Amino acid sequence: MITRSELEMARQLAREYLARAGIALSPLESQRIEVADFGLGELWQTGLQLITYVNTDRVCAKELVLLPGQTCPEHRHPPTQEQSGEVAPGKEETFRCRWGTLYLYVPGEAEIRPLARPPAHRRAHYTVWHEIVLHPGDQVTLAPDTPHWFQAGPEGAVVSEFSSHSDDESDVFRDPDVQRTTVIGPDPTKGPQAGGQGGGR
Amino acid sequence: MITRSELEMARQLAREYLARAGIALSPLESQRIEVADFGLGELWQTGLQLITYVNTDRVCAKELVLLPGQTCPEHRHPPTQEQSGEVAPGKEETFRCRWGTLYLYVPGEAEIRPLARPPAHRRAHYTVWHEIVLHPGDQVTLAPDTPHWFQAGPEGAVVSEFSSHSDDESDVFRDPDVQRTTVIGPDPTKGPQAGGQGGGR
Repeated sequence: MITRSELEMARQLAREYLARAGIALSPLESQRIEVADFGLGELWQTGLQLITYVNTDRVCAKELVLLPGQTCPEHRHPPTQEQSGEVAPGKEETFRCRWGTLYLYVPGEAEIRPLARPPAHRRAHYTVWHEIVLHPGDQVTLAPDTPHWFQAGPEGAVVSEFSSHSDDESDVFRDPDVQRTTVIGPDPTKGPQAGGQGGGR
Repeated sequence: MITRSELEMARQLAREYLARAGIALSPLESQRIEVADFGLGELWQTGLQLITYVNTDRVCAKELVLLPGQTCPEHRHPPTQEQSGEVAPGKEETFRCRWGTLYLYVPGEAEIRPLARPPAHRRAHYTVWHEIVLHPGDQVTLAPDTPHWFQAGPEGAVVSEFSSHSDDESDVFRDPDVQRTTVIGPDPTKGPQAGGQGGGR
């Protein structure tokens, strides 16, 4: 759960990062920037701000904003069962850094001194440690079902994601505490206020 | 055919437009910016500069740069025959304006006073006139096989294209003179020099 103040603060920060990256949003996109806390209620540590430009049956494109040190927890996109009964391959993703620095971790030879540190109390749920550092203009494409997690560098990061159809519900997170829907709760100093918001990525 | 000088000038201009749009390229991408003249040899009127970030069986993402008034001629992306014998739907595209202005034309009610003018001597090959004007942050998604053409406004345009797999050879252009491969020819003042370059979009 995040509070409405946290939601609005995260949105405002995301707007500032996107402006620094030279990325224009429509007024509606700017209002509706999605904020995901992955159900952990530790948004500034584990979280993501995002704008989904398009998400059809075939193609999805998003802009991801990570605040300094903010982490997207380890997950993968497994094959999915279609309505027709056929099994479709999981989501294929390309991450392209637009601004700042992104530390991305995938299966492979583990980095002995990784530049990113996941939140210490959740460390057990981070199992892939092959490090890829993305600066502006760098990109990497992940095959479907590849476990991965990522964290912004000390200046934050703005990252474009180009992928096949995005279906948040089929994502498999390593940390069993993660939930896909971000719940907006009351601010501590105000009266009760509650509402749901679409899930993260 | 374009000359090597035209190729290098178009690349350099594209770099400058991308820098204005705040879009970072890797050194290799910057060197290899693709320049398409659609075989017409009238690059500054009919042409396109582009960088393909990714193009897998499922997903394609590109950055398009159009110089002031430069036009991408009318075409569509019809269904394609797969190696398996199955027929796949044509390319589905989303165009998102990042910088400048793009005038996009699709089927529908014709604009009486269109903001774009195709090259006069090729006017007969422009048949769809429903106008969509894209400013930074605006986007539109075209269903497969939708005829479309576009032209940059007076300041030029930088446009992201998010799509399914891109297969230039299957594109169908309205103008029979269009050819997909850009041929690089000799500069008038220099000795003979020739080479091929991959096709445009």
